[in-house]
Amino acid sequence: MVSLLRALPATTPEMLAAFGDAALLRAALAFEAALAEAEAGAGVIPASHASAIGAACVEEHFEIGALAEAAAHAGTLAIPLVARLREVVAAADAGAAASVHKGATSQDVADTAVMLQAKSGLALIGRDLAVLRGDLAALARAHAETPMLARTLLQVALPTSFGLKVAGWLAGIDAAGARLAREAGGALAVQFGGAAGTRAGLGGQGGGQGAEVAHRMAAVLGLASPALPWQAQRDGIAGLGAALAILVGALAKMARDISLLAQGEVAEAFEPREAGRGGSSAMAHKRNPTGCQVVLSAALRAPGLAATLFATMPGEHERGLGGWQAEAPVLAELFLLAHGALSALVPVIAGLDVDALAMRRNLDAAGVGEDWGEAPEMVWRAVP
Amino acid sequence: MVSLLRALPATTPEMLAAFGDAALLRAALAFEAALAEAEAGAGVIPASHASAIGAACVEEHFEIGALAEAAAHAGTLAIPLVARLREVVAAADAGAAASVHKGATSQDVADTAVMLQAKSGLALIGRDLAVLRGDLAALARAHAETPMLARTLLQVALPTSFGLKVAGWLAGIDAAGARLAREAGGALAVQFGGAAGTRAGLGGQGGGQGAEVAHRMAAVLGLASPALPWQAQRDGIAGLGAALAILVGALAKMARDISLLAQGEVAEAFEPREAGRGGSSAMAHKRNPTGCQVVLSAALRAPGLAATLFATMPGEHERGLGGWQAEAPVLAELFLLAHGALSALVPVIAGLDVDALAMRRNLDAAGVGEDWGEAPEMVWRAVP
Amino acid sequence: MVSLLRALPATTPEMLAAFGDAALLRAALAFEAALAEAEAGAGVIPASHASAIGAACVEEHFEIGALAEAAAHAGTLAIPLVARLREVVAAADAGAAASVHKGATSQDVADTAVMLQAKSGLALIGRDLAVLRGDLAALARAHAETPMLARTLLQVALPTSFGLKVAGWLAGIDAAGARLAREAGGALAVQFGGAAGTRAGLGGQGGGQGAEVAHRMAAVLGLASPALPWQAQRDGIAGLGAALAILVGALAKMARDISLLAQGEVAEAFEPREAGRGGSSAMAHKRNPTGCQVVLSAALRAPGLAATLFATMPGEHERGLGGWQAEAPVLAELFLLAHGALSALVPVIAGLDVDALAMRRNLDAAGVGEDWGEAPEMVWRAVP
Amino acid sequence: MVSLLRALPATTPEMLAAFGDAALLRAALAFEAALAEAEAGAGVIPASHASAIGAACVEEHFEIGALAEAAAHAGTLAIPLVARLREVVAAADAGAAASVHKGATSQDVADTAVMLQAKSGLALIGRDLAVLRGDLAALARAHAETPMLARTLLQVALPTSFGLKVAGWLAGIDAAGARLAREAGGALAVQFGGAAGTRAGLGGQGGGQGAEVAHRMAAVLGLASPALPWQAQRDGIAGLGAALAILVGALAKMARDISLLAQGEVAEAFEPREAGRGGSSAMAHKRNPTGCQVVLSAALRAPGLAATLFATMPGEHERGLGGWQAEAPVLAELFLLAHGALSALVPVIAGLDVDALAMRRNLDAAGVGEDWGEAPEMVWRAVP
Repeated sequence: MVSLLRALPATTPEMLAAFGDAALLRAALAFEAALAEAEAGAGVIPASHASAIGAACVEEHFEIGALAEAAAHAGTLAIPLVARLREVVAAADAGAAASVHKGATSQDVADTAVMLQAKSGLALIGRDLAVLRGDLAALARAHAETPMLARTLLQVALPTSFGLKVAGWLAGIDAAGARLAREAGGALAVQFGGAAGTRAGLGGQGGGQGAEVAHRMAAVLGLASPALPWQAQRDGIAGLGAALAILVGALAKMARDISLLAQGEVAEAFEPREAGRGGSSAMAHKRNPTGCQVVLSAALRAPGLAATLFATMPGEHERGLGGWQAEAPVLAELFLLAHGALSALVPVIAGLDVDALAMRRNLDAAGVGEDWGEAPEMVWRAVP
Repeated sequence: MVSLLRALPATTPEMLAAFGDAALLRAALAFEAALAEAEAGAGVIPASHASAIGAACVEEHFEIGALAEAAAHAGTLAIPLVARLREVVAAADAGAAASVHKGATSQDVADTAVMLQAKSGLALIGRDLAVLRGDLAALARAHAETPMLARTLLQVALPTSFGLKVAGWLAGIDAAGARLAREAGGALAVQFGGAAGTRAGLGGQGGGQGAEVAHRMAAVLGLASPALPWQAQRDGIAGLGAALAILVGALAKMARDISLLAQGEVAEAFEPREAGRGGSSAMAHKRNPTGCQVVLSAALRAPGLAATLFATMPGEHERGLGGWQAEAPVLAELFLLAHGALSALVPVIAGLDVDALAMRRNLDAAGVGEDWGEAPEMVWRAVP
Repeated sequence: MVSLLRALPATTPEMLAAFGDAALLRAALAFEAALAEAEAGAGVIPASHASAIGAACVEEHFEIGALAEAAAHAGTLAIPLVARLREVVAAADAGAAASVHKGATSQDVADTAVMLQAKSGLALIGRDLAVLRGDLAALARAHAETPMLARTLLQVALPTSFGLKVAGWLAGIDAAGARLAREAGGALAVQFGGAAGTRAGLGGQGGGQGAEVAHRMAAVLGLASPALPWQAQRDGIAGLGAALAILVGALAKMARDISLLAQGEVAEAFEPREAGRGGSSAMAHKRNPTGCQVVLSAALRAPGLAATLFATMPGEHERGLGGWQAEAPVLAELFLLAHGALSALVPVIAGLDVDALAMRRNLDAAGVGEDWGEAPEMVWRAVP
Repeated sequence: MVSLLRALPATTPEMLAAFGDAALLRAALAFEAALAEAEAGAGVIPASHASAIGAACVEEHFEIGALAEAAAHAGTLAIPLVARLREVVAAADAGAAASVHKGATSQDVADTAVMLQAKSGLALIGRDLAVLRGDLAALARAHAETPMLARTLLQVALPTSFGLKVAGWLAGIDAAGARLAREAGGALAVQFGGAAGTRAGLGGQGGGQGAEVAHRMAAVLGLASPALPWQAQRDGIAGLGAALAILVGALAKMARDISLLAQGEVAEAFEPREAGRGGSSAMAHKRNPTGCQVVLSAALRAPGLAATLFATMPGEHERGLGGWQAEAPVLAELFLLAHGALSALVPVIAGLDVDALAMRRNLDAAGVGEDWGEAPEMVWRAVP
């Protein structure tokens, strides 16, 4: 959705930037520069060509509006981008223009670029996830022995401790974070297959440079270098999308609980008060759980997006028609939603307003006794 | 996705504008102006206040970047918008500021604005759908008696006519267009419920003005006025989303067939040649079915988006937390994809390059005889 | 899911029967009998053949276990079914066997059969929806002036009346019921296209009987007869699936609200007590909202199923590979879930245990005054 | 879907059994027996009680039809199951009845049972995946140097080798298999939390037996024993569902390619001929790609099902209402579809009818030269 008014409540300026036009342009140029550098290293093109190409791969030579229009017409960004890059290179070194994009194809650029953007996105998520986990651990320990009512099927159940509830949240986040890291390990790979996925056109005799070029590119770009190009095997993107959707689900589990605890009749925990946040255009007394709202919205949107990434997998032959092309905007949307949800929840947990007296009062009113089983020791064991 | 480079291949500048920031701002201001006009008409506020408010409801008084940031913080666009509107009004008529947004709430603005945007979007779709249907009818008639091979389960079957294939496409589009019109009839309604959905705060004695205000607003805005506010009953949006997804599916049925006919080994029909479209960054001989690609991509993305609009329906109480807030960007995305797909297909059908000789040749090669049943008369009956 | 233990909590024995093996077999036989009758009427086959075929089209001649195994192997039910039908017919009238299934193909049987099953399913839903709507209307009127707290974003808002809440529920159900009826009107159609969708093989001279046969079959089966066979245009099934998912969403809106009202700390409305329902295997004091649980589960499952019916639309050529074949079990699942949800909610509404005193008490405790706007008159207007 | 006629084409009798009623009953009884054994080992109940309970936990004492009906009414299987188990135990040892289900709750049974069923399901998938991978590796090596046309965007591209295409398929399957194993490692865990997730009710003094009981149960059942009960953290099930959907996608990638190669005009590879499979009820000459059809159908259904498992994650408090209850049938459906797809594809690959001459002919006809880059060496490196 190209609308700040609709996008900003759901995500962060940082993640918008990571998946914005400028970042995509930079990532595509990084691909072309790394390709040239790798091909020079492998002896496929002269080193001087690689230098000329590297020097030309800077944003300033490209105009996003014009590129966007041309890409929409051509059906792919790489065509106008490479054409413009050749112009820029030729202006400095006419001979080097022929070495631009050598052996590569549009999808190589597109796939590698989205992986570079994903890498940036994962760094943002990783950074904020670490904060959230620390805050959750502290909260769980602080309330390991704070009694409250457990509720099952939205009904009064038996006593538990607030710390045990929080330890459960943390367990969910830990698992989601570990899955995301695992999927990133597999997915963040360079794509380099050329027109037909055979790494033809490198001009080599006897071949073999393809693997070396891919390997060198991967090193330059900080990506993995898989055994085969993955232009027609899309499970890495699907796995990444699934991991993001599951992270959003784990965040939304907390938002669900907090929003229920913040109901007027329960009143056991609240989002922190923040000036200008959570107000109502009609009711001055409202203190809306705006952080939880962002997270719960994300959790309604993420499943359908992840499903799309499963649906695109069975593409046609060496490069499908319509499937892989649908993935980049959907994966981007998942990053936007996941970071929006995470960033909305971090301050909620950091400043959560816990009313232990209200917890005690509601527990007493329920008349379900005092047996909270092993709640405190479960917390100590899980969050040492 | 706030990225032109990723959005433009999938949609049109027109639909981007219809769901862009400026259009959303205009729609929200149209709500506030219509509300004031309706309330003046119903005697709830002085006519002079309505005039002052109407005069202030112009884009120029508002700065989108600042609004977007404030809305992200507040959790809703209406709060900063109404605050700024009050300022602008007060500068011209201090007394009128108190009549701004009277009896309304944030969701009233948001829901009505999205319906105004949907109305614009539907007009664009309706316009292009009429062209497509005309072209399909002409194509079906022109080829009512062009023999070709029917294919079932991706295998050679028996003879049919190309006109019958096209008549089937048209039937799918007709049904999808009719459904979209029906759903629009139900969904494009003004939302006016106030803080609790009770239309309180209109300052009336004995009440009753709420319905009149809603009715007058609807007339001003060109929307329907349902018996009750719909802030907590979201089936209209879900129905609209489903109709858009089904339209995309009907378009993609054509794109699927055309892309299969355009395979090198089949070679019976092709997208029209257009300079700079469908090329390859690696292979000069390619004539890629770029229009079909856009449509097939849309068809992979629409189902998950429509599913989200079903999932948001069971919101909490008088105004839910996270559900309805997730809808506007998802509905917008469906409009973007549907119009992108439609606009990509219109020129494909208008200029479809049909090779009747190749159809004949493939049919002969299959050796399945000449019995095409009632193919031509089926066309004449369905597309008179 | 072939498991009673898992299916029964989610649906009803009636709907299980409507979409069970015996019903499918009966529907497929009804197709074959109607086809023979229609073809005899149109002069395509002798009347005596139609009689022999009609007499053979009874369940007792077929064994479901064997058919299921053979259908799984053949990839379609029609092949073993027609083979067995020919045997049965031949035993009575050797000549008539050649008239079995004349001009039809597997998908004609499969698609028409699912429509006959859908018709049964819609009758069950229609019957129970009428009861629910009557009960909701009565409940809305009875509580038009019962004050309660409106809640927005899960926070205390302003006063409303319980009747207005119920009137909103009813509006959602009315809209969903109307949409379902509209979609059924379009979708419940006979499918008769033959091997290539051209209605070949009817042995006519000059053709034209295809339309007459289809028309007569439709009359016999109580289905519509569209202008063209719809084997490759699947929007009818997609529309029906969407309407079912939206109905489930409208039901779940009620279940959401009731389950929130039934929370111990709110305690304003409860599912009726019923012996053996809603108990806990661990806590004797529990009164779980089991009806709401069934409805909310259905609402989590329906969106993904409806999305599948959008995704299958772009099938290949005259009869796709994998797409339409995926639809019948998914549509069946939607019927099962929708009727399960409806049947779970009917007794909840009929016996809803409303605590008006608790509503008053919570409203007073919130301290938000007494202004409920036009709540009562809104009810009277919407539910006269 | 409780219909053999609809279920069998999509899945296998083995997987139907693994998720059938009898298997579910056995798994639930295995939970109760393991619980008793573990509690006896931890000193929570007398060893003689555990023996009596273990002896009673045999299928023969339970009647599935009656249990299904009672479970549907009660809203959970555990209530009638435990009631009946107590009867059976009491008949042998009156005192032991009080030790049945001690400290456990319905969800403990349900969640652990589904994990035991998943374990069986994973074993079936693992077994057949090993066969498929072996066959793919052999096929890739056999055709490492078989030239064919690569096709991109459904258009003629450049030469490649069939072995490289197959090596790509294998890479997708390897990745999907590894992901499934990883997710199983995390998800296949015992659930034991008791009524409120606190492991209360074990009768201990000082507590601590809960962890020991869980640990012992896990050992008996062959499941993992996580740090905390997971009744409210559902990411394991979501991850498992995602991995199954991705496996289906990787299988469908092959089915897509094979079905396109098997088109009459391409004719490069075919499913093996098998008597009675792939026929047409209307056309004797057809050789339908029935295996591919099953796989492609599964790939259209799996995404929506996996999305449901993401959507259920944000459940309410210690045990949600409607969310987790929706998961078991959906996860079962994913297992059914995944094994159906896998089992349909194994014989297709094992007996794939590859026409290398046709590949050569189509390649020559395309006139795109002979440069297949590093195709053969890419195969040797990837599939040593």
